[in-house]
Amino acid sequence: MRALIAYAHEEPKSFNAAMKDRAVEVLSGAGLEVDVSDLYAMGFDPVGGTRDFTALENADFFKYGKEQRVATERGTFAADVATEQRKLLACDLLIFQFPLWWFGLPAVLKGWVDRVFAAGLIYSHDMWYTTGKFRGKRAMVSTTTGGGPAIYSETGLNGDLDQILFPIHHGMFYFVGFDVLPPYVAWSVSRVDQATRERYLDEYAERLKAWQTTEPIAYPPLEAYDENFQLKG
Amino acid sequence: MRALIAYAHEEPKSFNAAMKDRAVEVLSGAGLEVDVSDLYAMGFDPVGGTRDFTALENADFFKYGKEQRVATERGTFAADVATEQRKLLACDLLIFQFPLWWFGLPAVLKGWVDRVFAAGLIYSHDMWYTTGKFRGKRAMVSTTTGGGPAIYSETGLNGDLDQILFPIHHGMFYFVGFDVLPPYVAWSVSRVDQATRERYLDEYAERLKAWQTTEPIAYPPLEAYDENFQLKG
Repeated sequence: MRALIAYAHEEPKSFNAAMKDRAVEVLSGAGLEVDVSDLYAMGFDPVGGTRDFTALENADFFKYGKEQRVATERGTFAADVATEQRKLLACDLLIFQFPLWWFGLPAVLKGWVDRVFAAGLIYSHDMWYTTGKFRGKRAMVSTTTGGGPAIYSETGLNGDLDQILFPIHHGMFYFVGFDVLPPYVAWSVSRVDQATRERYLDEYAERLKAWQTTEPIAYPPLEAYDENFQLKG
Repeated sequence: MRALIAYAHEEPKSFNAAMKDRAVEVLSGAGLEVDVSDLYAMGFDPVGGTRDFTALENADFFKYGKEQRVATERGTFAADVATEQRKLLACDLLIFQFPLWWFGLPAVLKGWVDRVFAAGLIYSHDMWYTTGKFRGKRAMVSTTTGGGPAIYSETGLNGDLDQILFPIHHGMFYFVGFDVLPPYVAWSVSRVDQATRERYLDEYAERLKAWQTTEPIAYPPLEAYDENFQLKG
């Protein structure tokens, strides 16, 4: 089994780094091969577009999805994209490790998705959701927040964290077929004491040890929708 | 009055470009000064971090929010960030023009927010939501989708577009104090016919002409929350 951790923090002393390191330790200890895409350290370029390709089908009118489908057939993805695609395609467990910035992924990780999750190779309309490429595989968010659980609750000022993570959970992970594990959230990491931070790391380690048996978030399967993509009544 | 369009598409022949051009025409025609941040054309770097600053308070342990607050006091934002902050601070109307990628902003625009919306300068815990810097000003999403309205409805396979846009509407715009105008969505632009695309541009123009009188999305004001950031009962 293989895990891939897509990791988006610039500071090696950060709590995100500690979480990434703990995940490597726990998953390796459980016998998995672990790949880490340390996006800041790699200098990963997150700007999706023409630079994703070694050749263009139509340089006069750039259409991203079309070029991705052509590159899938011809093997003309740029080296940085192709390398990440190989890691992604090989993984049984995908983890996004990031600080929650502006209610979502830091741009370097959002752009990893924009570029790597290419039409044709990673998804198509015959290969998405429960017919997705990654069905039977698992994905999980591991994140840190500024605020505590109250402000991210359903009646909280920032809104429900589950709703905030929907574009990642449903729109990225489930969209390409992953079973989506509940997120591990390290709340207010810059404000809590050292004992709490250590407890977070231990809780996260327990979650990782249970990655194969944890109940995924329940989403309706593709066959629950009609031909207009509406839930059947 | 000034408008700022943060525009994220690489292809000048794209429908996003046509929407951006129409917005410039309509808003200029209504007497506004219009700034366009054409992020691809500018080669905007969306990777937030140490490169945002001309000097660091603590280079041994990089803390992003802390460095942003210091840079606000000392004027040590890097030139690319400072230029965009000036445009943002000057605007009465902010428009995000982008194709919906992976249920959110393309990375180049997400990173524009990550870097430009700096702690201290653009928001703080005394200056957010209804006490935000941009209160009385207006912001709006203008986006294009691959799918149609059915798949983005509440019972649709991709989930409710309002929920998908919540991190932008509530988490970015309202967070810094903007009144949030309902989004203009050009559905399935690559699949509809030319007459429909022209209708989209005309509808969008009408929406823009009414930017000062359109009813914003209703969110509870800050004073509706208690000291734990919970909605008062």
